[in-house]
Amino acid sequence: MKVAVLGVGLIGGSIGMAASEHVAGAEVVGFGRSSERLDRARALGAIHRVAGSLEEALDEAEVCFCCAPVGALPEQVGAALAAAPPDCVVTDVGSVKRGLVETFGDERFVGGHPIAGAETAGVEHARGDLFQGAVWYLTPTGSSSGILYERLYRLIASLGARPAAVDAASHDRLLAAVSHLPHVMANVLISQAAGRGDLPRVGPSFRDATRVAGANSAIWTDIYIANRSAIADEVDAAVEGLRRASEMLRASDADAVTAWNEQAAADRRRVLDADSPEGAVQELRLTVPNRPGIVAQVALALAQAGVNIVDLALAPASDMRTGAITLWIAGEEQAGRARQLIGDLGFPVA
Amino acid sequence: MKVAVLGVGLIGGSIGMAASEHVAGAEVVGFGRSSERLDRARALGAIHRVAGSLEEALDEAEVCFCCAPVGALPEQVGAALAAAPPDCVVTDVGSVKRGLVETFGDERFVGGHPIAGAETAGVEHARGDLFQGAVWYLTPTGSSSGILYERLYRLIASLGARPAAVDAASHDRLLAAVSHLPHVMANVLISQAAGRGDLPRVGPSFRDATRVAGANSAIWTDIYIANRSAIADEVDAAVEGLRRASEMLRASDADAVTAWNEQAAADRRRVLDADSPEGAVQELRLTVPNRPGIVAQVALALAQAGVNIVDLALAPASDMRTGAITLWIAGEEQAGRARQLIGDLGFPVA
Repeated sequence: MKVAVLGVGLIGGSIGMAASEHVAGAEVVGFGRSSERLDRARALGAIHRVAGSLEEALDEAEVCFCCAPVGALPEQVGAALAAAPPDCVVTDVGSVKRGLVETFGDERFVGGHPIAGAETAGVEHARGDLFQGAVWYLTPTGSSSGILYERLYRLIASLGARPAAVDAASHDRLLAAVSHLPHVMANVLISQAAGRGDLPRVGPSFRDATRVAGANSAIWTDIYIANRSAIADEVDAAVEGLRRASEMLRASDADAVTAWNEQAAADRRRVLDADSPEGAVQELRLTVPNRPGIVAQVALALAQAGVNIVDLALAPASDMRTGAITLWIAGEEQAGRARQLIGDLGFPVA
Repeated sequence: MKVAVLGVGLIGGSIGMAASEHVAGAEVVGFGRSSERLDRARALGAIHRVAGSLEEALDEAEVCFCCAPVGALPEQVGAALAAAPPDCVVTDVGSVKRGLVETFGDERFVGGHPIAGAETAGVEHARGDLFQGAVWYLTPTGSSSGILYERLYRLIASLGARPAAVDAASHDRLLAAVSHLPHVMANVLISQAAGRGDLPRVGPSFRDATRVAGANSAIWTDIYIANRSAIADEVDAAVEGLRRASEMLRASDADAVTAWNEQAAADRRRVLDADSPEGAVQELRLTVPNRPGIVAQVALALAQAGVNIVDLALAPASDMRTGAITLWIAGEEQAGRARQLIGDLGFPVA
């Protein structure tokens, strides 16, 4: 199977590696604007060979992945469809889907979006197991070819991902709620805090809440613009939620505040549990001595016992040394084992 | 110096331990509602002896720390002032200050708030170095005794903390902006996402943004109510910020979106840098193989070289194994060393 990858960064490079590793007889051909980057991708094993032109990349291709940034996708997908053979399925990996799907009614086009690897960029970070277990959204429409959709679906499953069909509009609303809105909120939060006369000293909860503030504009301006309508709807809903919270606070109704906060606690558990294939996520809080190396000691003890850490947060003392660690472990059994191991190290666990 | 600690949980217990360790001749006497908890505190070395009554605890005391939860502080501080000798300074450790300071005009009362240890509770987690390097706000007023304020200031400095005077209203607005508002936003965000028909799968940015959602109501309802006016003001300001963001998105102005996002990036750097006594915080992004133990390997390598991790975030692949790590290191030199060490381990760093 000949696989064309247009744009060999983190995602394109990882697709190439995963196809080489998992698909017997796969030939991965790369094309992009930078010949230097293409050479690096080949040297790293992300592609088998570099095409001299878009047409050469697509010649006899059975699958084509368009991996340009969101803003450049309409042009890239259009060019790919123009050059691709009649029985080649063309897909993309952009995090916003509706505009693209509405633009290209071609039966060979199926939009896609793997939920993986947003934090780093560049083929240097590519790896063949990037999509292992990851949800990979596909947005077929009534005009998509069934045969080509099935080919794409099977290929993505063989890369280790879990393909999930969703209509493009639902996809965009979902991503607005769980990814784009948190970015907007982080931006508002950090600029509001920084706008004070005195720059505040901040704690771990503030750092967590603003970690994605000011994320790479080269990627995010495109996302904000491409999904502006769904994001604005989610922002407006958050405005309503905050306005209700403000009114509730001014009314000084302690019972209402408790009920609202307990609802959030229940909602958080439901979301975390739904997100964990290994069982309900348990939260462990450790108090540890104030010295370097302690994170390593804990992580190593758990790793040696085969316990996976789903998520981890440090609450360093204000002198910037570790003071407390919160761990999230999936499944009662693993959490129990973690509790035991940490107790053996002599640290109290809450 | 006789020190009375009323309420021996995480904070009260840590004050007792720190005073025993750092103040020559200190005698720490504890009092509280649960005799079982008081006995445990004594067994753990958090207090020297248990008082049989409030009056006994305060007999000849020179300093009294009121460590009840925020909602119970007015009663506790009032009782302490009634029982305390004329030359005893009475302080508290609550995270909201204005109401308390306005209620008690007694020259012996100085409000306080150490920025430490919010994430765990209970004397089991108490430690003598909890306040090492931590900011400890003090809110003296025009009626506070200068001699008693100086005694408290010196004692807190000798516990390892950095006392910082601030007026109570400014303190409450500051905490509303950097602690209470992020909690409100997290609650709104999680309940909005959970209110969808389909429970979403969420990524690391969503987990970071909602980590404090539904925090312990036994603590937080009191905080929300006690600081409701300042929090509601901050929530209203965030509503305005979000409304502007929503309008900007609907206007589809890419340049405005980029400028807004770059401002957030600059604000984040300013806040992180102001918060770090060791120099500007550097962000390192690593891509690591998908196996347990990798966090330990990295943390251990840095710890052995004496490099402190200010903050750390995992971006696990959707199968809940570690996939990428973001580290924040304070200071160019330490960050450079970290980059070198991680490179030596064979992981690409961005």
